[in-house]
Amino acid sequence: MPLPAHVVRGEGEFVIDGHFGVALKGYKEPRLKRARQRLLDRLSEETGIPLWREASLNEPHFIVQTAGPSAPVQELGENESYHLEITNTDVQLKAENPLGALRGLQTFLQLVRITPKAFTVPAVTIDDQPRFPWRGLLIDSGHRFVPIPTIKRNLDGMEAVKLNVFHWRFADDQGFHVESKKFPLLQQKGSGGFYYSQHEVREIIDYARDRGIRVVPEFDMPCHTGSWFLGYPDLASGQDPSHSSAIDPTRESTYKFLTGFIGEMTALFRDSYFHAGGDECDPKEWEGNPRIKEFMRAHGIKGGVALQVLFTARVQKIIAGRKKIMVGWDEVLQPDTPKDVVIQSWRGSKSLAEATRKGNRAVLSSGYYIDLNQSAAEHYQVDPLGDVAATLMADEKARVLGGEATMWTDIVSHENMDNRIWPRTAAIAERLWSPQEVQDVDSMYQRLAMVSEKLGWYGLRHRLITEEMLERMSGEPDPEPLRVLAAVVQPPRLYQRQELRTFTDFTPLNRLDDAVPPESDTAREFNDIAKRIASGKATREEWQQAREWLQLWRDNDAKLQPLLKRSFLTQDLAPVSRNLAQVAEIGLQALDDLQGNRLVNADTRQRNIEFLKLAAKPQAVLLLMVAPSVELLVQATRAQ
Amino acid sequence: MPLPAHVVRGEGEFVIDGHFGVALKGYKEPRLKRARQRLLDRLSEETGIPLWREASLNEPHFIVQTAGPSAPVQELGENESYHLEITNTDVQLKAENPLGALRGLQTFLQLVRITPKAFTVPAVTIDDQPRFPWRGLLIDSGHRFVPIPTIKRNLDGMEAVKLNVFHWRFADDQGFHVESKKFPLLQQKGSGGFYYSQHEVREIIDYARDRGIRVVPEFDMPCHTGSWFLGYPDLASGQDPSHSSAIDPTRESTYKFLTGFIGEMTALFRDSYFHAGGDECDPKEWEGNPRIKEFMRAHGIKGGVALQVLFTARVQKIIAGRKKIMVGWDEVLQPDTPKDVVIQSWRGSKSLAEATRKGNRAVLSSGYYIDLNQSAAEHYQVDPLGDVAATLMADEKARVLGGEATMWTDIVSHENMDNRIWPRTAAIAERLWSPQEVQDVDSMYQRLAMVSEKLGWYGLRHRLITEEMLERMSGEPDPEPLRVLAAVVQPPRLYQRQELRTFTDFTPLNRLDDAVPPESDTAREFNDIAKRIASGKATREEWQQAREWLQLWRDNDAKLQPLLKRSFLTQDLAPVSRNLAQVAEIGLQALDDLQGNRLVNADTRQRNIEFLKLAAKPQAVLLLMVAPSVELLVQATRAQ
Repeated sequence: MPLPAHVVRGEGEFVIDGHFGVALKGYKEPRLKRARQRLLDRLSEETGIPLWREASLNEPHFIVQTAGPSAPVQELGENESYHLEITNTDVQLKAENPLGALRGLQTFLQLVRITPKAFTVPAVTIDDQPRFPWRGLLIDSGHRFVPIPTIKRNLDGMEAVKLNVFHWRFADDQGFHVESKKFPLLQQKGSGGFYYSQHEVREIIDYARDRGIRVVPEFDMPCHTGSWFLGYPDLASGQDPSHSSAIDPTRESTYKFLTGFIGEMTALFRDSYFHAGGDECDPKEWEGNPRIKEFMRAHGIKGGVALQVLFTARVQKIIAGRKKIMVGWDEVLQPDTPKDVVIQSWRGSKSLAEATRKGNRAVLSSGYYIDLNQSAAEHYQVDPLGDVAATLMADEKARVLGGEATMWTDIVSHENMDNRIWPRTAAIAERLWSPQEVQDVDSMYQRLAMVSEKLGWYGLRHRLITEEMLERMSGEPDPEPLRVLAAVVQPPRLYQRQELRTFTDFTPLNRLDDAVPPESDTAREFNDIAKRIASGKATREEWQQAREWLQLWRDNDAKLQPLLKRSFLTQDLAPVSRNLAQVAEIGLQALDDLQGNRLVNADTRQRNIEFLKLAAKPQAVLLLMVAPSVELLVQATRAQ
Repeated sequence: MPLPAHVVRGEGEFVIDGHFGVALKGYKEPRLKRARQRLLDRLSEETGIPLWREASLNEPHFIVQTAGPSAPVQELGENESYHLEITNTDVQLKAENPLGALRGLQTFLQLVRITPKAFTVPAVTIDDQPRFPWRGLLIDSGHRFVPIPTIKRNLDGMEAVKLNVFHWRFADDQGFHVESKKFPLLQQKGSGGFYYSQHEVREIIDYARDRGIRVVPEFDMPCHTGSWFLGYPDLASGQDPSHSSAIDPTRESTYKFLTGFIGEMTALFRDSYFHAGGDECDPKEWEGNPRIKEFMRAHGIKGGVALQVLFTARVQKIIAGRKKIMVGWDEVLQPDTPKDVVIQSWRGSKSLAEATRKGNRAVLSSGYYIDLNQSAAEHYQVDPLGDVAATLMADEKARVLGGEATMWTDIVSHENMDNRIWPRTAAIAERLWSPQEVQDVDSMYQRLAMVSEKLGWYGLRHRLITEEMLERMSGEPDPEPLRVLAAVVQPPRLYQRQELRTFTDFTPLNRLDDAVPPESDTAREFNDIAKRIASGKATREEWQQAREWLQLWRDNDAKLQPLLKRSFLTQDLAPVSRNLAQVAEIGLQALDDLQGNRLVNADTRQRNIEFLKLAAKPQAVLLLMVAPSVELLVQATRAQ
């Protein structure tokens, strides 16, 4: 995953044992050697065979043949194709450049599995290249600082699923988290002490390059910039800088500052693209200041949108002056926006289509907001060339560069971030890499489970986090009954979570809606079975599995309630647990009724359905995901 | 844990929330500030409250009052005492020096727990100091290289349980794993590419000092030195250096080399103590070389032991010449051994007692070999002043400095090391810190479980490793039936494991006897219950728990067998799983018989007992730990 463009299965399998080794042929560079070492390290971790120690002694049966170098700074649209041929005895990986070799190594790693014989890779011939050249993940280090190790392991995850753009956002109203040497008060006053030094930024850029990933920085302006004003209040629009979040676009001093700042940052970040934000400006910020209002009147600027256009045009010129291409959110697209500006579409396919029709290139993020707790299937079904974009002309479609998953940190911390990003982002990565025809959701979920496990071996913490947080919440080393509940609840989708719970910038994110993954695998599997039972297609094993689960859930409440009382972080889960027991009780009754082909009392049936609908509503900021599935079962019973 | 010397419980509890902060009063140094930051980081991780971000803003109710500095290089016997007073509203920690403050901070951290109200620490007044000044952990980076992150997190673990000596062993026949600038061929030829740079060594020394831990290096000589000869064959005793493991003590060039080498290493390691090994010499290595034999004859040296005495005396002089005190294993104790040499006793209490009687100081390691898969209780019951040492005179006892747990890596890798060290080493740490009267094994196990969980929050991987390795072995993301089996087996104790399985230096350590902890908590708890049932003292809940476990084990085999077939790493577990099912079946029958007070067929009873004895024997290098407990149950039944 992502599924390669072209796969032909062979006969047999290649064995990985203590004799495994990799030879580099053709063009060589230190990055390739490090990639080989990383492959050996990964394999050692995954198999327990100490290859990292012995590999140098072995005669390699894995040949990586690279024709020539990649660009010195990774470019948009560079060749990432590779040819991978695995037989019983040998592995051949061929690529035009190191970028393709990196992609091929990841494919090889994903194929490793354990068999009755050994750790092996199945014989196969793969020809592969990406569908879209811009396949990104945004990590928002603006709302909350994200520590370097978190960034690094997520870059490892990106490499594993062949994402190639790390969109790194550094500032927001809540904080300014990167070092400026020219304007040090930005981080000194704006970061709360937590920011990336320029040395660390360079380290991350190198780390990303090693993995075939570009780093596109974002400094969102003119809005979401409250933290800038702690150090440089003169930039602020509001009369009280500490309550202002928009830059003042009317002062020449603003542009002098930005020329210096953007000059510094475009030098620090090597990538050709530079993201200047531009989203969600509130015109009141400007219109509320008499001085700015007077400026607008004097210059015939009609309202905040027009003022932002003026600002964006000047910022774009500063960026272009540094030989960089500007990227901006939807709002920067205006009649006079230069054609080379790339639009990142967060409001929908319509704005993406509009951008490409105007001749701009565009990247889709709408539908890929992984902070909103949607299912992998939902994200998977969003296509950059789907929806309104499906109606574009060929040349317009060619301007759709790809997409970006967005990990906003308003209400996600570095602690639970991995569990929001992974594994669902792998489904988005597949959408952006694999051919458009690859659409089978069941197959996607199967492979997603496999990738999720691999990512665990590569150091991602998504599977550990829930367990750790449940231990914290319960104060128990092995909180099994809480685990049972946690496995069937989810945080509500989209923006409902914020409606149900009050979040400030300092709210500890240590409750069950923070701890559980955005998507319950157990609930999804139970729902599949419930559907088949309701439609009379379930196997004996599925009936049995449904019954076992329902019994587990019914009996769990008695064990869990005493536990919940002991901790202030779990007390509010008592009704959720009670509901689960009652839902399960109803489910078991429905199974009996269906199995015995019994007629059910109509009133009871109706009451149960009403209860199940109620139980499906959020409680303690959680959705009990199995309630609708049990309703399917009850709906399938027949009333007297 | 370790239990403090003096504890008085108070009323109420101190709440840890977003307003938590710590003030340093009195003597200050950067180490104390870093310790405070570490405390905040730990608390943030453990509670999910982002203190790391806010702490600077808060008014502190936790005052750390330090009177003065510690020694510039931590000394043996330095004051580590502290006074900790926790009330509803305030925390006062007082110490003579930073060392005591570090110890007190760890005590505070251990007291944090979750309650129905908040994260809190109970009100308490503690006056605490260690019983022994030398409380160590040996990590053997000689047999296998141990990566820096593994070393660091184990230093964190040591700090948590107040151990204060990291004994770091760098070389053995298998490898030489530290950089020498004077004799670079040592690591270039002897390390397989994996060694600690001197920069990394200094980093670890600083890291340890930050945690109040001394670093005592060991270079074992004249034996276990095979890896030295890859770079410097002239040092070897054997005529074929590549098959030699002992240094040639007869050549002057040897001492010239050692003067240079020890000079370099005593400068690199700041501690006043320098460990020169001296264990397990095979006289044949010397006697097999005619040149050495001739030297011995010419100088009237009668045999290998006497030759080693000569060698040790010269090495000791070199070390003393660098103003360091030599430490050596039992064997270096000879009639003329200088009195300042510290003996590390690995062969038993007798050699420890002998050393102190001769006027030398001594450290006990016999009984603390944590690589040998003994129980925490076994280690806990070993006292440096117990056994033969209990008969020593007061002044001799005063020369017993403490003890050291030893993590040998012959058949443990950096992957499963944490699970061999933790949590059992905390029991040894308690033996070495707490008053001798602290002996309650049940209380120890209760507190050990708590510490084990804390250590997980501090980054130790002991609880994760088993789970990861089971996933690897099974190829399954959630191998529940394998987990059930794994929870009740143990690797055999002492040296039996090596008798049952062939290990080379390159053997992958990825089987179930590598994966499971050295001590099965489930089996221990089941055994406690079985004992109470057998003696008629069990509660209704205990009967119920025993029955649930036995049913789980009986039914597990049917689920596990198909899984075991799929992987070459689990195939040999089939009979172990079958045995568990049969043991459980017998156990359930015994419960029924006991509960019904039935007379049992004598032949059946006897056959069952015989089967249970057989099932208690190692199979697939594993002990089925519940078999003897079930035998207790059967033995408690009465025959017809």
